[in-house]
Formats: sequence, structure tokens, C-alpha cells
Amino acid sequence: MHILITGAAGMIGRKLTERLVTDRALGQDTVERLTLVDVAAPARPAGFSDHVKTRAADLADPGVAAKAVSERPDVIFHLAGVVSAEAETDFDKGYRVNLDGSRALLEAIRATGDGYRPRVVFTSSMAVFGAPFPHAIPDDFHLTPLTSYGTQKAMVELMLADYTRRGIVEGVGIRLPSIVVRPGKPNRAASGFFSGIVREPLAGREALLPVSESVVHTHASPRSAVGFLIHAATLDRARLGARINLNMPGVTCSVGEQIEALRRAGGDRAVALIRREADPLVERIVDGWPHRFDPRRALELGFKAEKTFDEIVRVHIEDDLGGRVAAA
Amino acid sequence: MHILITGAAGMIGRKLTERLVTDRALGQDTVERLTLVDVAAPARPAGFSDHVKTRAADLADPGVAAKAVSERPDVIFHLAGVVSAEAETDFDKGYRVNLDGSRALLEAIRATGDGYRPRVVFTSSMAVFGAPFPHAIPDDFHLTPLTSYGTQKAMVELMLADYTRRGIVEGVGIRLPSIVVRPGKPNRAASGFFSGIVREPLAGREALLPVSESVVHTHASPRSAVGFLIHAATLDRARLGARINLNMPGVTCSVGEQIEALRRAGGDRAVALIRREADPLVERIVDGWPHRFDPRRALELGFKAEKTFDEIVRVHIEDDLGGRVAAA
Repeated sequence: MHILITGAAGMIGRKLTERLVTDRALGQDTVERLTLVDVAAPARPAGFSDHVKTRAADLADPGVAAKAVSERPDVIFHLAGVVSAEAETDFDKGYRVNLDGSRALLEAIRATGDGYRPRVVFTSSMAVFGAPFPHAIPDDFHLTPLTSYGTQKAMVELMLADYTRRGIVEGVGIRLPSIVVRPGKPNRAASGFFSGIVREPLAGREALLPVSESVVHTHASPRSAVGFLIHAATLDRARLGARINLNMPGVTCSVGEQIEALRRAGGDRAVALIRREADPLVERIVDGWPHRFDPRRALELGFKAEKTFDEIVRVHIEDDLGGRVAAA
Repeated sequence: MHILITGAAGMIGRKLTERLVTDRALGQDTVERLTLVDVAAPARPAGFSDHVKTRAADLADPGVAAKAVSERPDVIFHLAGVVSAEAETDFDKGYRVNLDGSRALLEAIRATGDGYRPRVVFTSSMAVFGAPFPHAIPDDFHLTPLTSYGTQKAMVELMLADYTRRGIVEGVGIRLPSIVVRPGKPNRAASGFFSGIVREPLAGREALLPVSESVVHTHASPRSAVGFLIHAATLDRARLGARINLNMPGVTCSVGEQIEALRRAGGDRAVALIRREADPLVERIVDGWPHRFDPRRALELGFKAEKTFDEIVRVHIEDDLGGRVAAA
């Protein structure tokens, strides 16, 4: 089996690559080749490098998408995109990368023809929803995004469903909750602090908290995100039907509850490293995002996330900190 | 006030033009100029021709959208598009006209800058919804279109909302129910028969019925459609909020009930002109469309449609047949 990952240099792309290289399998199939594409060349995974091609390219540039699918990958994980804050500040770039890049990929698949019909797993976002919300968002709630990022994700979901209905691809869109705890440096996502307030203190560094502790949000770990992707790639299409875009499960809790889980893992010293500094732009964006879901379909289809925020902190310590906590 | 109508040569475009020329006003404002654009040059309305420009052009062609907005129309009625059956059979044309043409229009407005911020009223469709449905579709029901046409309409709705949120336009999207009775010849819309079974028999001609009499659907007259457009153009934006795309009201009835209304207006002779001939493609498309709505927001915002199908038949006889029925 040949797998293409777009946005492979991003955090989830790297973790997905690692998992595929470790497993050497996707569901029942052996992974024979990996193609990793991103605007900056993705790193070659150790131990499997004979079977991996990496490429620095932007899907929205002419010819790039055609080249990316020219070797007919069986499964495409389409993760490429600019994050919410960047799509909000750079209007043109957001539409170009998030919408036009995705459309170019779908069109390149269509142009291949000849019965080529890959599984395309697209990472969408809960940002397709916009306030006001019911207490918990049902699977059939309408899409009224309040960011350009959410708009672009929702537009691609719609195209993916249409291309799937037409038999051009086998699409599955997964709406990720906030992926927490993100390793590495803070990125430009407005949701970055949800990770920062755990990751930074556990590493002995100060973290900024731009919103109030009462903010409620839904999270899943990077390990769960990779699990969602793999489950979406191996899911029986017949079980999915026409509604291919799914709300993923996660742990719903307040920022205050996150901080208490941090305290249990890293002690008062860790919690003391959180510095409160209100940011009205972040506050506004986060307020417009959904807080709580009732992701019945995804659960019925077998998607699994953590049950508590403590588990999410533990996954971070295991997967990114080698099991050790600096500040404890 | 300067008004631009795209798709002005279409049925609703012509009736809207007629109404604006008759009223010489839109809400509190005097209509000073009209610009009518369509792929085929729209007819110049009688009696106002000094103030009307017509242009044959395709918004998706380079430079056309920029030219269309170069004289800064205050209100843009964006009606241009290919219909459902055509968007389904010609994939490229559907996306080019319905999506790229609309995007080109929004981008041309954005490129104008300098505080230019027209009201843009976009005719969307109930085809943004896809089966299975609850008994009556609520305003917050999700968008899972089952046609390329519905997909393209939903994508433009999302863009229109984002460009509105960004302050580039003042967008209002109105999801039209089936507009019945359409005057003139049958067109390529899958919904064409809903008009045909009334219009043709009232003119003494045979009409094809491709679906069963039990099919339930929601309709409004062309006069109501024009009323929706004008109401959307004059609506206080503050009352609308962020959710600018609205389900319009209409008359919900079965094909059998339509036929009984035809009988009351045109007699048994008219009804005898309906010839049943099942068409599986039309049946499939219509089955995937919504049947019944609970359009609470539109009603609260003052949008008005007919109350009975008899009224819809009467509007057709008044507006398109000069008050006379051939077959009665």
C-alpha cells in the first residue's frame, strides 16, 4: 500500500508518519511506500527511508497536486493547511492554501481518471461551527463558522462529500477537537494556549493564559488524532453513507480543570508558571468556537479518544517527554 | 441607487427587473440605474431604458466581475448560476459558473476596497440540504447536499458569510424553495415538472409528471421570490446577525394537492393533460431534496410567501396569463 501525507511536516503529520513507520501497516494492509509532502521538506523517518519520498511543494501551485497523485497513492491523508490565526490575518493565503490547495488535490485525482479512487482522509475542524450553540452540539447542527479558517474547512468538507458522491474519491472528513498537548514551540493557532498551559509548565517554563479559567473546550491528544486518522482510513465506507464529515470525540473540560490536571501531574510549582494575560482577539475567536459535543455517529463508528484530561496529560508525558516531568 | 443584477436574463431576474422598473424604488431609495448582466444579453426593460445598461458576460471569465462592479452598484442581486440538472451532468461547468463565478464577484468587490461595501443578495437553494431529514427542517439543520448544485450553493453561502463578517460585503443568502409556477418553456432544472404540471395544462398543453403524486415539496411563486429578494435587500443588517443564510417560507403540499388546485383553477380538462412518465434520475434527485421546513427566522424577519397552492396558481394566472385560462 502506498500512502501520501500532505502537511506531513506538521505536528500531526510527523506523529502519523512515526506510527505508520512503526506499524508498517494500515489496517490489514502492509505499508510499502510513503510519500510525504509539505511546503518545507518533511524529515525522512529513520528505519524506513528506502520506502519514503519527501517533497517540498505547495499543493496550490500549478502542477504540484498532479505530481503528488501521479503515483496513485491508495490512501491520502490530507492534513495540509494554514492554522486559524494565520487564515484570519492573511485572507489570501488562507483561501489559497486551505481551499485552493485542497481543490487542486481533488481535481488532480479526478484528472487521473481510469478508475483511480483513493481514500482521502481530510482533517477538518470544530471551527466549522459558530456560536451561538446549544448546550452540546449534535451531529446534525448547521455550519456557521465565525472564522475564515472554519469557512475554508467547511467548504472543503462540502467538496469532499460531492467528489465522494461522484465516485472520484472515498472521502472521510474528521472534525478534530483541539489537539492537546501539542509538543514543540507555540504555533500561531489561536488555540495554542490550551497546550501551552500544560506543556510549558511541565518543562519548567512560563506559559501565557489569554482567556479566563471558565472557558470550556473539548480536547483530544495527538495520539488520539493519529488514531482518528487511521480509523478513518480503514473504516468500511458502507457504514459511513453520504454524510462523510464527522465530529470527533474528545474530553470536555474547563481551563480550570485543565490546570487541576496539570497540578496532579506537575505539582503547584508547575501551576505557578501560568501567567494570566488577557488577549481580546484570542478570547473572541475562542468564544466563537464550540465548547461541547454529542458526537454520537463517530462513537458508533468506533472512533476513540481519552476519557479524562489527566489521560491527555499522561499521553503527553509518555509520548513527548519520555515519561519524565521536569517541574514535579 | 444603482442596482446590479447577475443572471438578469433568467426568469427571476426578468421579474425582478420588471418590479424594480415599475416601482422605481427599492425600499426607501429611488432606483436611478440598473445594470443587467447575463451570459446572454438581458432584454432592456421598456420605459426606463435610459437608465439601464445590459451586458452579455460570464462572471467566471477574467476581468468580467471587476467590470461588473467598477461602477460600484449599491445593491447586487446575484442570481447567476446553472441549474441543478445541468450542474449534475456538467461537473466542470457547474463549479465554474456556480462557485468560481460567485467567488470572482466577491473578490472583485474586495479588490475595489476604499470602503465599498455593497449589499449582496444571493439566491441559494433548499438543495443545500440532503436526505435523510426530520419531519420539518429546522433553521439550524446541517448542510449535507446530495447534488453538485447544492454543494456549490452551500459553498458560496459560506464564502458570502465570511466576506460579510470581514466587512467586505453585506451579504444575505436566501434559500429558495421551488419557484412555481415558472412561466415559459420547460428548463433543465430537475424541479421543472412542479411548474410544468400546472403551466402546461392551463395553456392547453400536455405536461409530463416524472414522480409519484405522493411527493411532498415546498413552493413559492415567482412573485414571492421577487418579494424575498427585495426584502433581503432592504432588511436591517443588525437584525440578521452572523447567520446570513436563511430558509425562505413557502407552501408545503403533495403533487396530488397541486393537481387538485389545478383542477379548481382549470377543471378536469386541465388535469387530464398530465401524463405520468416515471424518470428515475429526477425521482432520485427530488427524493434527496427536503420536503418541509420550519423557517422560523425568515418569518420573524418578515419574509412572506403564499399560504395555499391555490394562491400560487392564481398568481401565475394573474402575472403570466393576463388573468385568463385556456383550458377552463
